[in-house]
Amino acid sequence: MDTDRETTANLSELRHLIDEVDAAMVELLAERFRYTLTIGKLKARHGLASRDLERETAQSYRLRNLAARSGLDVDFALKLHAFIIQEVVRNHEALARRN
Amino acid sequence: MDTDRETTANLSELRHLIDEVDAAMVELLAERFRYTLTIGKLKARHGLASRDLERETAQSYRLRNLAARSGLDVDFALKLHAFIIQEVVRNHEALARRN
Repeated sequence: MDTDRETTANLSELRHLIDEVDAAMVELLAERFRYTLTIGKLKARHGLASRDLERETAQSYRLRNLAARSGLDVDFALKLHAFIIQEVVRNHEALARRN
Repeated sequence: MDTDRETTANLSELRHLIDEVDAAMVELLAERFRYTLTIGKLKARHGLASRDLERETAQSYRLRNLAARSGLDVDFALKLHAFIIQEVVRNHEALARRN
């Protein structure tokens, strides 16, 4: 194989691997939102607050360690987590309003 | 168990499941960034563009279907993906500048 064809083949193989990772992440996220939906309903039913800062702090601490251990950029992991939590809180607040 | 204790137990179990999902997601993200780092180096070495809009469009289309099928909010999935891609492109550009 010449260099261009080799590069294209490598790129294509890596992209295939990334697609597999993305598919697994979608499944995990869907699972995660099923759990947080159940939590949201539980909180709404019992009048508990949408956010729990103690829990969020514990999660950040844990994520920071997991990210560092797996070689994932820690700041990125925390930013992404904050992005997900934001969506979860939005959903919880909508459930609380409906209750 | 009275209702409060039952609620606390349910909440704690669900949070444990969420923590497991988050740990798996950190692993997957670390894996994903290892692949995109290799792609970034390949692109930098061969002077290829940091972004490939055709690829990004194909990814969005695929993700939209995966999200819909698994019950994940499609808009959220696309926003999260854009967030990840943004980080990848930033890394690719940094690699290109170093080359």
